[in-house]
Amino acid sequence: MSTVTAYAATSATDPLTKTTITRRDVGAHDVKLDIHFAGICHSDIHTVRGEWGDVKYPMVPGHEIAGVVTEVGPEVTKYQVGDRVGVGCFVDSCRECANCKAGVEQYCTNPGMVGTYNGTGRDGEPTQGGYSGAIVVDENYVLRIPDSIALDAAAPLLCAGITLYSPLRHWNAGPDKKIAVIGLGGLGHVGVKLAKAMGAHVTVLSQSLKKMEDGLRLGAEEYYATSDPETFTKLAGTFDVILNTVSANLDLGSYLKLLALDGTLVELGMPENAMEVPPAALIFGRHSLSGSLIGGIAETQEMLDFCAEHGVTPEIEVIEPDYINEAYERVLASDVRYRFVIDTESLRGE
Amino acid sequence: MSTVTAYAATSATDPLTKTTITRRDVGAHDVKLDIHFAGICHSDIHTVRGEWGDVKYPMVPGHEIAGVVTEVGPEVTKYQVGDRVGVGCFVDSCRECANCKAGVEQYCTNPGMVGTYNGTGRDGEPTQGGYSGAIVVDENYVLRIPDSIALDAAAPLLCAGITLYSPLRHWNAGPDKKIAVIGLGGLGHVGVKLAKAMGAHVTVLSQSLKKMEDGLRLGAEEYYATSDPETFTKLAGTFDVILNTVSANLDLGSYLKLLALDGTLVELGMPENAMEVPPAALIFGRHSLSGSLIGGIAETQEMLDFCAEHGVTPEIEVIEPDYINEAYERVLASDVRYRFVIDTESLRGE
Repeated sequence: MSTVTAYAATSATDPLTKTTITRRDVGAHDVKLDIHFAGICHSDIHTVRGEWGDVKYPMVPGHEIAGVVTEVGPEVTKYQVGDRVGVGCFVDSCRECANCKAGVEQYCTNPGMVGTYNGTGRDGEPTQGGYSGAIVVDENYVLRIPDSIALDAAAPLLCAGITLYSPLRHWNAGPDKKIAVIGLGGLGHVGVKLAKAMGAHVTVLSQSLKKMEDGLRLGAEEYYATSDPETFTKLAGTFDVILNTVSANLDLGSYLKLLALDGTLVELGMPENAMEVPPAALIFGRHSLSGSLIGGIAETQEMLDFCAEHGVTPEIEVIEPDYINEAYERVLASDVRYRFVIDTESLRGE
Repeated sequence: MSTVTAYAATSATDPLTKTTITRRDVGAHDVKLDIHFAGICHSDIHTVRGEWGDVKYPMVPGHEIAGVVTEVGPEVTKYQVGDRVGVGCFVDSCRECANCKAGVEQYCTNPGMVGTYNGTGRDGEPTQGGYSGAIVVDENYVLRIPDSIALDAAAPLLCAGITLYSPLRHWNAGPDKKIAVIGLGGLGHVGVKLAKAMGAHVTVLSQSLKKMEDGLRLGAEEYYATSDPETFTKLAGTFDVILNTVSANLDLGSYLKLLALDGTLVELGMPENAMEVPPAALIFGRHSLSGSLIGGIAETQEMLDFCAEHGVTPEIEVIEPDYINEAYERVLASDVRYRFVIDTESLRGE
């Protein structure tokens, strides 16, 4: 075991504080990496505050991790010391169920993927995330970060990036497709860039026109305010795919009517309450309401390589670890353009 | 114009009564048919009782029509006198929108298909349905009934049949697919037969096991009671497609969990209230909730030909017109195996 400095939540209500945690010894198939940057995801806040179920405090959040390999186990074949690597939302899965075998480990059913934090590893210990100086992970759950992507910008791709990339691929985003992204935040702004890079026609549906200039700069062809009822009249029957990055409960009936024949509205966030769906909004036009959860390891690597090839990187604001609690408040107030990334250098020293 | 005997609703609450209505003269592209049989669809009852919006009383229901051509307009090319034909849920559409041009006239957007009853025809007159002795319809909205299908059994295929056939085809029912049908009624029993004929593995999910023997005889491999909570544990993650033929509001969260990865639950009925969908039931497993509405003219013909080829016909109870009101009560009590079909002979005389 080794010790490492980290920022941990000690309860659902107290601020995160600096502490020391242990990391397991590097096993035969393990990679140890120095963490250079860790993104702040809205999921971190939901989990810390106990909004998504039980939390094993003290708990270190962070599942958008970018760093450099410092040690490899004797059986490791994919990585070597010095490699630039990332870790996303999960660090293990059963590897035996049909979904694991099909490379969609995020949908592991036996009993489910092991979250990068607040999960339970094979050793029975709670997993601890990326707001720390180092982490030890099985090589099969580590991603290679292409040289052309800076480590700070790479971090948010490990969750926000794959959360948007996977549904865009699954629902065939491309030159002949009209894609709408609801919400221009940490997820949405990456979705706009990715969909644009895939050649799709991209529209942003945002509460107001405040971020319109940004949206168009990021690659959207069109930008509409959902506070204006006219938007829903004008755009009826338009989109092949709508990606909803907003966790709040929307008036889904109105949004479903914006779909073209056989169009799909994909839920990426997790609204607190059940969604209300008027049946006619599905039946007339053979519309679908679907959900999508991050992506598998192979697809996450594909996404990183795609981003390198197409120059897609998130827009970030790099912060020091002692700013985490303030950053949380700003995330909740939608006051970040567009993703906070923690520079973890100060957590790496002994 | 000609006159014809019919059964019409005169208000939302009064019983249907015998009356006389007019049919337009046979136009250049029109076909006139003697109606031999008309199925009773649950939609008829919803419409009659004003549960689906405004009704133009007096209104003659019936959109599962089977009969024989008695007259054709001078420009008609597809049919001749003596042909066995059917008419389904719509008798016209704009013919110009993208959906009409794509052969999915049921999703016509300009402003929508013209219902076989309670719609407004091109002549500005209200359309009147199949509980009558004859009807005049543009040849492009008439179907050919294969010789091997009796006219009484053919009638329900025009709505119940295509309502199940279209989603089974759209979501690729076949030998490698596990299909569940919720509800073994007028729609569901045809769904079981069709899915079986397509080679799929068919499971019925019914409230109780009362109709189990029937379900297995009709082609289901498995039959479960949804009143038994064990059903939902045992079948979790099983189905590629679930067709919901029940109009009542179900606990959709439980049913969505029965879907395999990338599975789809398709709503075919129209529950009165908005459906409540827990987001996790979609996101974990990339499940979809979709809707489907009857089918286009070409696909309806394909369905009839498929039924002829595979010997698929509905199970029916043939009734006289003066039994319509009692039949309505029995439909509402789910006391019919499995579709009432009106023998309209007594409405055809002068």
